[in-house]
Amino acid sequence: MMGMPPEFPLESNVNANTYVVGVDFGTLSGRAVVVRVGDGAELGSAVHEYAHRVIERELPGSGVRLGPDWALQAPQDWLEVLKNAVPAALAAAGVPAEQVVGIGTDFTACTVLPATADGTPLCVETPELPHAWPKLWKHHAAQPHADRINELAARRGESWLPRYGGKISSEWEFAKALQVLEEAPDVYARAERWIEAADWIIWQLTGVESRNICTAGYKGVFQDGSYPSKEFLAELNPGFADFADKLATGRVGTDEGGVTLAPLGGLAGRLTAEAAGWTGLPEGIAVAVGNVDAHVTAAAADAVRPGQMVAIMGTSTCHIMPSDRLAEVPGMCGVVRDGIVPGLWGYEAGQSAVGDIFAWYVDSCGLGHEELTALAEKQAVGQHGLVALDWFGGNRSVLVDHNLSGVIVGQTLATRPEDVYRALIESTAYGARMIVETFERAGVPVEEFVVAGGLLKNPFLMQIYADVLRRPLSVIGSDQGPALGSAIHAAVAAGAYPGIEEAAAAMGQRTEAAYTPDPDRADAYDRLYAEYRRLHDFFGDGRMLHTLRAIRNEAHA
Amino acid sequence: MMGMPPEFPLESNVNANTYVVGVDFGTLSGRAVVVRVGDGAELGSAVHEYAHRVIERELPGSGVRLGPDWALQAPQDWLEVLKNAVPAALAAAGVPAEQVVGIGTDFTACTVLPATADGTPLCVETPELPHAWPKLWKHHAAQPHADRINELAARRGESWLPRYGGKISSEWEFAKALQVLEEAPDVYARAERWIEAADWIIWQLTGVESRNICTAGYKGVFQDGSYPSKEFLAELNPGFADFADKLATGRVGTDEGGVTLAPLGGLAGRLTAEAAGWTGLPEGIAVAVGNVDAHVTAAAADAVRPGQMVAIMGTSTCHIMPSDRLAEVPGMCGVVRDGIVPGLWGYEAGQSAVGDIFAWYVDSCGLGHEELTALAEKQAVGQHGLVALDWFGGNRSVLVDHNLSGVIVGQTLATRPEDVYRALIESTAYGARMIVETFERAGVPVEEFVVAGGLLKNPFLMQIYADVLRRPLSVIGSDQGPALGSAIHAAVAAGAYPGIEEAAAAMGQRTEAAYTPDPDRADAYDRLYAEYRRLHDFFGDGRMLHTLRAIRNEAHA
Repeated sequence: MMGMPPEFPLESNVNANTYVVGVDFGTLSGRAVVVRVGDGAELGSAVHEYAHRVIERELPGSGVRLGPDWALQAPQDWLEVLKNAVPAALAAAGVPAEQVVGIGTDFTACTVLPATADGTPLCVETPELPHAWPKLWKHHAAQPHADRINELAARRGESWLPRYGGKISSEWEFAKALQVLEEAPDVYARAERWIEAADWIIWQLTGVESRNICTAGYKGVFQDGSYPSKEFLAELNPGFADFADKLATGRVGTDEGGVTLAPLGGLAGRLTAEAAGWTGLPEGIAVAVGNVDAHVTAAAADAVRPGQMVAIMGTSTCHIMPSDRLAEVPGMCGVVRDGIVPGLWGYEAGQSAVGDIFAWYVDSCGLGHEELTALAEKQAVGQHGLVALDWFGGNRSVLVDHNLSGVIVGQTLATRPEDVYRALIESTAYGARMIVETFERAGVPVEEFVVAGGLLKNPFLMQIYADVLRRPLSVIGSDQGPALGSAIHAAVAAGAYPGIEEAAAAMGQRTEAAYTPDPDRADAYDRLYAEYRRLHDFFGDGRMLHTLRAIRNEAHA
Repeated sequence: MMGMPPEFPLESNVNANTYVVGVDFGTLSGRAVVVRVGDGAELGSAVHEYAHRVIERELPGSGVRLGPDWALQAPQDWLEVLKNAVPAALAAAGVPAEQVVGIGTDFTACTVLPATADGTPLCVETPELPHAWPKLWKHHAAQPHADRINELAARRGESWLPRYGGKISSEWEFAKALQVLEEAPDVYARAERWIEAADWIIWQLTGVESRNICTAGYKGVFQDGSYPSKEFLAELNPGFADFADKLATGRVGTDEGGVTLAPLGGLAGRLTAEAAGWTGLPEGIAVAVGNVDAHVTAAAADAVRPGQMVAIMGTSTCHIMPSDRLAEVPGMCGVVRDGIVPGLWGYEAGQSAVGDIFAWYVDSCGLGHEELTALAEKQAVGQHGLVALDWFGGNRSVLVDHNLSGVIVGQTLATRPEDVYRALIESTAYGARMIVETFERAGVPVEEFVVAGGLLKNPFLMQIYADVLRRPLSVIGSDQGPALGSAIHAAVAAGAYPGIEEAAAAMGQRTEAAYTPDPDRADAYDRLYAEYRRLHDFFGDGRMLHTLRAIRNEAHA
């Protein structure tokens, strides 16, 4: 809920009636929002679509073909967001630029690029080389490299591995970099920096390089003050031994074990004259440390206290939760000290596909979401006789197995498309319940379940989640949570608030218990969830699903 | 294959160039075909659709509403087939009526009606009473009665129960009759006869009542010379004790244990003047003993020798196989002495839904069979990564559990409708393989797999069956197998051949090894079939699927 304007520990030019800008760099576009420091009011926003969107088939200009599972982006597209969306948002807000006191950003992650020591992306010099381009988070061609990393880490008993549920992702910094080393050693050698786009954009805004704790921890395997050891990296590939040298550079923040990382909400630097020119913002205003879309959303929902689990539900779901307890939660994506807010452990978990599953089914059956929802919402719980496993995109939490696949059980000749649609929605709710229960069994309490993201617009789905989870759902008050969250971090960086928690309390927006479980429906779902768990146990060992995947891959080859 | 014209043990007016008429009474229409005695050539045919089709919602005339799962038919519709389709087929064939020497018929089963001692259907007198009407085979409202029969038979260890795979169906004579007794005792009391439509139509043609061995055995639980005992029936309901008196009447055939049943291919009687008037056929020609559509098809495919399994594949699949060995094959529908041809054990097994599953999926995805087939047939085996359980209509053989339901495993966001379509076709082939293997494990060899029925027109599906079964498929040469089979039985009844086997050899048509397995594809299917068997084991106990069904039924209630 919106708080009362707080007492400000103000810098000279910062007060409740000044403004901050948040910029959210997504997969297909970037969004800027202008927010009032005192209460988080969103005065104007604008979206700029990337000209190159996702580069999946061939490189721009040269037409060089990409392999399967590749996904790249163009750095120029990101700069265009600064040049277009920020001024447009300012104009829409009707706010004079000189009243803006800070800018914050968030990015998809792990979206990562090779660069020179001055921050120039390698793809500027050699646009004909695929590996010189930024790899988007959903670049999955480094899976063999991730497999080797996981296998070796498990064999060596690397201490960081349990912090990631026992497996790191092919999407992350080390897997993607190892792919570059082994497939394009020249590019690897020229890469003086291997940098998250989240940090690269800050470099462009401030003129100085920094590395944020969030991506370093969740995507860069930075734990207990250091990256994976040289011995470990050398065993993967001798040429990889010094890889962390390309990462471990930063100006701002804590010094842990010789590596300097920038804390979330920290001041990364001041807006350069050049960046002021791009954005129309005043030179010298505060620029917040880089951050990740999901993680800043917690601030936008005013949900950064221990036990507040924020589920950002869209094509997939990301679960973000601060806690004062460190535990090895099976299948979590990661636990990072200071990874959401300073002073707390930040947990992340995830469901690989959620909205994607519903979209897939809509494509398969030829009916629309609205039509299917209208039919499905008339049903009593269990009336369709179905239960499904929500593994159509594999399973991140709690099994960490991307080679799993979906299962639908109980269909008859009388089964209608709306029955399957509803069962698929329910399956993702069961998956969420499995995650919540796994945290709690591991000793990490989940006190509140807070929903953000695009699926919020579907009240039918939200009610199913409340009934399946047997708990009230809080919902974020903004429909541009990441951008608002970035603005909140800008306010902290500008000195308007002592920390993220205070800023979130004043500027974030959350409605508690927006959906509450119905006891009868919750009882009925308990019975279905028991069957989901039986399916989970039977198929979760992967014996059958891995065999089917292997047969599939052989047949394709 | 067509044989050479045999030496005829002719009656005076029967020779190779005379003709017989076969009439197939289906679910929605009846078909007549005119066939040459010498070689089985089909000279002309005609179809007549039932005016009342299937009566499922309300009674004709009175508008009395029917309950769920009811399915009735109108006897007059059947007579209209004789009056319309037979003359039309004769005209189409260009055959003079006086050259027709016999008529044979087959019917859906168990389609059964209450009648008076002179054969008048009770619905003629009391058309406003639902229970006075013929119950079509797919009338499923007697399930509670079937459950009680099965439960009591198992408890008492009735010797006939293993002959039916351990369970009789709600579709059969005893379950449907018990429903009448308990829901409409007045109708039950007035019913001097409880007679299969297969026999009732013969009564109309000949003027004399007969009961054929086939329906008596497969649908009337007639085994080892008798019906279930009075003690058993009385324990179900005291009023049911003498039920078999309504069945055990017949003029023609063997006498076993006091009950007279008519052998298949036998002469039931001579065409009456009245029936000659309906059909345009000569009075006094031979009328064959009543029979069942699936069972006469074996003769039409010249597949009536031991080990020739005929699969009649359509909306569902019925498997018919003569054998010289008696065994208790798990999950078979029934084994009946003389039930397909005299002198052999006749086995029947079934898959509850086959073509129905594909039609269901076409409805679900909005694409057509042709489009889906064109896409699916390009795939390598296993390329879709899927395996499914073909239990969308429950499972008859080998689990005998109509409360099971379908399962689809392995779907991803990349799964396309043609993938699911192909997986569903394959699932039914796995189901067929499970049946074949179960027979062989029980000591009943399957020497040849012969396909008849509407799905023959899909070569893609046929090749999948050959590959999955790892054996050549023979195919019937006629696309109106049941009517041809009835005509063959007419030729036997007319004395043109000494028995069904000889007649089938001359008049039936079969292409051996029309489809042969590809060894590589068969190897690939072996791996997928192993996963099907694992699913079969896991879901076959019904623990999960029965729970889902129970929850579904409660939610509907």
